[in-house]
Amino acid sequence: MKAEYINPFISSTSNVFKTMVGIEPIKGDVYVKKANERMAYDVSGVIGLAGQASGSIVISLPTKLALKIVEGFLGEKKTEIDDDVTDAVGEILNMIAGGAKQIFSQIGLSFKISIPNVIVGRDHMITKHSTINCLGVKFKVGDQIFVIEAALKDK
Amino acid sequence: MKAEYINPFISSTSNVFKTMVGIEPIKGDVYVKKANERMAYDVSGVIGLAGQASGSIVISLPTKLALKIVEGFLGEKKTEIDDDVTDAVGEILNMIAGGAKQIFSQIGLSFKISIPNVIVGRDHMITKHSTINCLGVKFKVGDQIFVIEAALKDK
Repeated sequence: MKAEYINPFISSTSNVFKTMVGIEPIKGDVYVKKANERMAYDVSGVIGLAGQASGSIVISLPTKLALKIVEGFLGEKKTEIDDDVTDAVGEILNMIAGGAKQIFSQIGLSFKISIPNVIVGRDHMITKHSTINCLGVKFKVGDQIFVIEAALKDK
Repeated sequence: MKAEYINPFISSTSNVFKTMVGIEPIKGDVYVKKANERMAYDVSGVIGLAGQASGSIVISLPTKLALKIVEGFLGEKKTEIDDDVTDAVGEILNMIAGGAKQIFSQIGLSFKISIPNVIVGRDHMITKHSTINCLGVKFKVGDQIFVIEAALKDK
């Protein structure tokens, strides 16, 4: 994955949060995800990308932030991770992937988006194959952090 | 998802396990995955499928069975879920997706395969959007059970 490929995911994330969630997260560090790096979160969404380029995009959040974000998205108070919350996390990630897809298509890189899966489980970790080059970016919302991790390789 | 679409995933899983893992799992019940069904596992692989049809395939296993299967695949004893194990689970799922893709292409349904993500976390659950029609199948290996869950929708 070329380092600059993280940028469409960053701008799409900022845009979706601003317009659909009503929150402007503060972009933090971009990091290279290492195979044995074990960052643990409570709720994650995963979408595969496949076509001329293939890869995946992951959003991982702590429970408290997942509830806050889904409240912004749905406009109703949420106190536990139920189907509404997992559906909403999947939908938000789907929009982020869709926005990034648009930007990539402008530079001639095309892919299609699979359906999202949402993982719920305290302190789960998501790994890619150790040979896959994956970049992540931290976003801050108040005192909470979520991450977007993306891998995309040209065929 | 048409009910018969689960069959290529079943035959590909049986074939990959037989030829690459050296284990012949016993196929059990096929089930409709409900939105609020919360089956919990320790290790899961997820691959997105996108193209003319889009969807995803998930394999979920308890830790003990993940270690046993990876031992069969790599030919070496494994006692904990390390990078070798998560890499191998991703590779096995990739081969299952590849085998299913071949079978679907023969009935005129084409898709590409994204890169796998592997989730590790005690008792995590994987959900799809509550409107997505997803089928699963249980496979038995000794006294342990793993599941394959697939969703595929025609465009």
